[in-house]
Amino acid sequence: MARIVMKFGGTSVGDIDRIKNVAQRVKREVDSGNEVAVVVSAMSGVTNQLVDWCKQIAPLHDAREYDTVVATGEQVTIGLLSIALQEMGVSARSWCGWQVPIRTDGVHGKARIMAIDTDDMAVRMADGQVAVVAGFQGIGPDNRISTLGRGGSDTSAVALAAALQADRCDIYTDVDGVYTTDPRIVAKARKLDKITYEEMLELASVGAKVLQTRSVEMAMKHRVRVQVLSSFVDAPGTLVCDEDEIVEKELVSGIAYSRDEAKITLVRVPDQPGVAASIFGPLAEAAINVDMIVQNVSDDGRSTDLTFTVGKADLDRARKVIEEARGKLSFERLAADPNVVKVSVIGVGMRSHAGIAQKMFQTLASEGINIQVISTSEIKISVLIDEKYTELALRALHAAYDLDAA
Amino acid sequence: MARIVMKFGGTSVGDIDRIKNVAQRVKREVDSGNEVAVVVSAMSGVTNQLVDWCKQIAPLHDAREYDTVVATGEQVTIGLLSIALQEMGVSARSWCGWQVPIRTDGVHGKARIMAIDTDDMAVRMADGQVAVVAGFQGIGPDNRISTLGRGGSDTSAVALAAALQADRCDIYTDVDGVYTTDPRIVAKARKLDKITYEEMLELASVGAKVLQTRSVEMAMKHRVRVQVLSSFVDAPGTLVCDEDEIVEKELVSGIAYSRDEAKITLVRVPDQPGVAASIFGPLAEAAINVDMIVQNVSDDGRSTDLTFTVGKADLDRARKVIEEARGKLSFERLAADPNVVKVSVIGVGMRSHAGIAQKMFQTLASEGINIQVISTSEIKISVLIDEKYTELALRALHAAYDLDAA
Repeated sequence: MARIVMKFGGTSVGDIDRIKNVAQRVKREVDSGNEVAVVVSAMSGVTNQLVDWCKQIAPLHDAREYDTVVATGEQVTIGLLSIALQEMGVSARSWCGWQVPIRTDGVHGKARIMAIDTDDMAVRMADGQVAVVAGFQGIGPDNRISTLGRGGSDTSAVALAAALQADRCDIYTDVDGVYTTDPRIVAKARKLDKITYEEMLELASVGAKVLQTRSVEMAMKHRVRVQVLSSFVDAPGTLVCDEDEIVEKELVSGIAYSRDEAKITLVRVPDQPGVAASIFGPLAEAAINVDMIVQNVSDDGRSTDLTFTVGKADLDRARKVIEEARGKLSFERLAADPNVVKVSVIGVGMRSHAGIAQKMFQTLASEGINIQVISTSEIKISVLIDEKYTELALRALHAAYDLDAA
Repeated sequence: MARIVMKFGGTSVGDIDRIKNVAQRVKREVDSGNEVAVVVSAMSGVTNQLVDWCKQIAPLHDAREYDTVVATGEQVTIGLLSIALQEMGVSARSWCGWQVPIRTDGVHGKARIMAIDTDDMAVRMADGQVAVVAGFQGIGPDNRISTLGRGGSDTSAVALAAALQADRCDIYTDVDGVYTTDPRIVAKARKLDKITYEEMLELASVGAKVLQTRSVEMAMKHRVRVQVLSSFVDAPGTLVCDEDEIVEKELVSGIAYSRDEAKITLVRVPDQPGVAASIFGPLAEAAINVDMIVQNVSDDGRSTDLTFTVGKADLDRARKVIEEARGKLSFERLAADPNVVKVSVIGVGMRSHAGIAQKMFQTLASEGINIQVISTSEIKISVLIDEKYTELALRALHAAYDLDAA
């Protein structure tokens, strides 16, 4: 017998038939003797309708009232799913965020979960009652509903699993697990059985959007074992867990990519202390995230080129900020290139193995792909290349690291 | 300056434009210097969709989960209306039933309001903030949402007005007030400026469905002045108030009718003690309401005829209950007639004036209308007549009591 938290997103509960289907899956876990809590999102489309109504009345609306309106989406689902479970003979009850309560910091529209009181719920679960919990919402110190922001239901589920000390948190989604790379691009991409929190974080943050980054961080912090699996296909998914639990560690777990970056090069920046600060200070003030940064070695000892990446959506704003700061920082010209892609090789194994980076550079070179920027972390090597080589690079690297499915 | 509770039903908040329109009306009261609380229903159609989803999953669903689902309708409206008010520069905040809190007895689906704690709300209202409150819902002793049942938003508004000691409770609806009789039948029907609680109760319970009976009872108990007025036309409505406030009392305020009754006659029932109990006992046990009852004077000293009315929808069940009880009660035969209408003349003035009943009987007689059953109360005379005379009787009585508009 285990204690399990199951989470179903909006498409999984998109209509009455799908809600019944979810109830069947929950029933199966209950029939296996498990204690179950289910976290659900709003039926797909419902949240959009609610958001649209708010916008129709006022484009800039009170976040507290917005939260009151959109939180109803999950409230409808918990009631309907509870009814569906009861109809199948499974004891169940719904829990709104304020009823549990799931206490947040009260920052409306993007609240963080501070504490979850599961005493009452745990007693009922031990008695065989399924707890059906509204995702994406909690109650703030102001006694008002606060939502966690889009995608927050994953975080709700992981936080609830942590509070309940659950054996596993199963996140049902429209993909059947985490892949070595994007299967739409690399046909030989393989589903991973297990992956570490750290690798999952790198994969998620560089573009493999399966789980909300915040939910993975929370899972890692509280050591919650998270399984990503399909709500439509009946098969095991990918377990996101502690490194200790993975016996056969792969050197490289996956190849990720992100097309959301744009490259900016400032040509002939003075090579003197304080220059980087004078450039990145104004960008930070404008809330523009800078990712990769490379400063070339100065060839004449007086000036250098500075290259960095920003989000593609921020490119125009970043340009403007830099041009406006031109009085304080001098450079010959600004060159911008949105046609780039960041490709990353990820794996906890590279901590203890040399040669991983070298293989990446060699592979790309042998395909004639020029590397524009390189950045590395403990478990990741990222390169910026011309966007047109995305597919070629992914396929070549996937093969080079022996990730191809048999 | 006054403290006012305004209530808007589902059609008044049926879409975004109508919600903005409601916001305009609220703003006008605020601009006049009044403290305002607004009680709203779900957008029309929304509740039906939610109820339908519950029924699709299980025709007999858990009332607690049903309440959780349908209460979201009002929650959406309070958020949207608050946003609309803020957009017009009016300070406003939404209140779910559990936030106020509106405490109920916890009977799900048809809860009764036990207490409303308005301390926090009153302070905010005094500071100029409009309280936008979800009608139809409260929180029970089980810490779960309980709804008051269909039409319960009127009751929410009156109860809130009582708790806030409001000067007036304005119920906005799709009619512009209370009429002397049904204007669809009698073209000369007049809108009443004022009417007493007692008269309103009689009018409502016999068929003039403007306000929920329960809300009028509550208004009478707590002496809440209730105004019924149109949310689409800009004109004063009808004030439901204490008798003392009505200076020029009319002898008769209105003529009501109800087609919902059916007549049952038990022919040749023994004229002995306990007979009535043996008939009406089984009906009461079957939850069948009996309205008018007449027992004729026995002509032979041994048997009599007993006539009474039940709801038309209950007629078949009532027949069955009586036939099944035939072992204990003897009668020659049962005659049933669903083609009847109850017409009532209502007015507090008749307490102190004789001849009101006589005028009713004379008027109907002069039109050749036979009276089948008569019943009276302190402020009402009701007669049961053949349904085909409904329009004729209403018009004749309306003229006879000088109610016709000039």
